[in-house]
Amino acid sequence: MVDNYHKRVLLAHGGGGRLMANLIADKILPRFANETLQKLLDAATVHVGDANVLFTTDSFVIKPLFFHGGDIGKLAVCGTVNDLAVAGARPVALSLALIIEEGFEMELLDRILDSAAHAARAVGVAVVAGDTKVVERGAADGIFITTAGIGERIADLSTDAIEAGDVIIINGTIGDHGMAVMSQRKGIEFDTPIQSDCAALSPLTCAVLEAVDGVRFMRDATRGGVAAVLNEIAAAARRDIEITQTKLPVNAPVQAAADTLGFDLLDIANEGKVIMVLAQESADAALKVCTNHELGRDAAIIGRMLESAGPDAIVEMVTAIGGRRVVQMPYGRELPRIC
Amino acid sequence: MVDNYHKRVLLAHGGGGRLMANLIADKILPRFANETLQKLLDAATVHVGDANVLFTTDSFVIKPLFFHGGDIGKLAVCGTVNDLAVAGARPVALSLALIIEEGFEMELLDRILDSAAHAARAVGVAVVAGDTKVVERGAADGIFITTAGIGERIADLSTDAIEAGDVIIINGTIGDHGMAVMSQRKGIEFDTPIQSDCAALSPLTCAVLEAVDGVRFMRDATRGGVAAVLNEIAAAARRDIEITQTKLPVNAPVQAAADTLGFDLLDIANEGKVIMVLAQESADAALKVCTNHELGRDAAIIGRMLESAGPDAIVEMVTAIGGRRVVQMPYGRELPRIC
Repeated sequence: MVDNYHKRVLLAHGGGGRLMANLIADKILPRFANETLQKLLDAATVHVGDANVLFTTDSFVIKPLFFHGGDIGKLAVCGTVNDLAVAGARPVALSLALIIEEGFEMELLDRILDSAAHAARAVGVAVVAGDTKVVERGAADGIFITTAGIGERIADLSTDAIEAGDVIIINGTIGDHGMAVMSQRKGIEFDTPIQSDCAALSPLTCAVLEAVDGVRFMRDATRGGVAAVLNEIAAAARRDIEITQTKLPVNAPVQAAADTLGFDLLDIANEGKVIMVLAQESADAALKVCTNHELGRDAAIIGRMLESAGPDAIVEMVTAIGGRRVVQMPYGRELPRIC
Repeated sequence: MVDNYHKRVLLAHGGGGRLMANLIADKILPRFANETLQKLLDAATVHVGDANVLFTTDSFVIKPLFFHGGDIGKLAVCGTVNDLAVAGARPVALSLALIIEEGFEMELLDRILDSAAHAARAVGVAVVAGDTKVVERGAADGIFITTAGIGERIADLSTDAIEAGDVIIINGTIGDHGMAVMSQRKGIEFDTPIQSDCAALSPLTCAVLEAVDGVRFMRDATRGGVAAVLNEIAAAARRDIEITQTKLPVNAPVQAAADTLGFDLLDIANEGKVIMVLAQESADAALKVCTNHELGRDAAIIGRMLESAGPDAIVEMVTAIGGRRVVQMPYGRELPRIC
């Protein structure tokens, strides 16, 4: 197993969990060593002339290409918009690079591009650059899309600003995207299909940042789910986190699907969910902005930052029956090609 | 054939020729309609705060991953650096997004990342953002890399500025990259293998722009080769172009390989060649900057802009034996997965 890990790339290396963190730490950071990359933020700050430009990228390889609540085109736009949004930016422009398998149906390409264009227009972001590559049949699986985005900073967010007593908010129900895709893949049918939460979050994040001081840090909970984000925040802030299971917003059918398939919703990807860490005195105001916004109707305060009690910062959950359990960084093998 | 074109994506849709131009005109521009994208420049100008940021992206799907003179990692860095360079920018930062096939050898990933890091460092560009996705065996062909780049404008270049009498310079021999890859694919062996010209051009373009006024426009001659770039320039400037065959810098073994395989070097991809259009009075000074630079030792004046004689702007070549022939936009099927 160890040997295999060292010699070949595994699916879990792309899963957003521990193995991916190792890959980045071992292979990427030492080679491209620079302060900006080292921070592992959702978007990097680049100085161009007098401006601070936020810059990010993501590739999308989701399977199936069309799912309840979205498709790879919408996802590619929303995913990169969200990386800018949670970094405290107003998204300005996107690039869109397509890798297409020969023989891919034009009608599907039309639908995907329509969807990407609609998603970009809806949040006022221009698609200003692109590229198209076609590979022969069998050399790719339909279509892969890579977006990059640039934005203008409107707030200075950092895990360095996080203090004990800070409050953790999520803007709605967890695990919807991952379970929508997984139940579709497994052919599980529900009376009302589970919908992905795929959405561009910048209208919400900008509204919160404009209305409230005291936002310390935000991150969208994609691959690796809420569990991965909370562990990343705990490690970076060197403080423990306590969350309360009964406070986690959950859609009942999503929970049912997760129970059936044996998944923990904390590990499951979201595509329209942001974790916000705020000063305690700002929490109620921020929660109100969220619950009044269509992207945050089910928002909730789910936990808080503690002083770290041990050598490693950990995430603990007070369970529904009053016990406590550690929420670990997921391994990353749960759901390949979830985004 | 017509039906097939409409219904499915063909390899030639990604070839940099006529079919790709159609795809972009039919599918992309109407959907993402905005002035910046409409210009179809190598990099888009985006206003962030008070700064004009140049922004571009490219996906790389080259096969084989390692070729004489480079590999997909070096290529992915140089390609995006070059799009910024020819747009009149000083490249500042890159993103690097990997799509990797499960089972890909770590040792190859190491070599590719080393090469990308080395290429970026050599031109002083920081890799500040990235993403890693892994797809299951058979869902991709080894590794695909998408880079995006941002840069700072140092010159305002546009085909609108092009006038009759302007001079066309290329910085060296043509077709080296395409023929290096193709001869490797076909298993053709030479005593001295043909080397790709894969190189980051920003040191040369910045040197020319700093030394010389009167640079109207630049474009790197990648997919579709010199023929595609000249046709794009002629169409955008609405002026004919005349080039002289005997002035085109060519490596003898590359010409021999092209003759053997039946290719026209004008249609063949380069990865370290820039076409510059300059005011006549600036040409000699620019040529001198090039020939004194390691990236332009074989630079030559290859032609000039004319008034347009007919309804469509055309590119004509004075052949070695004194005849004239039209240099057409390549169809784009010549060399799939050349970059």
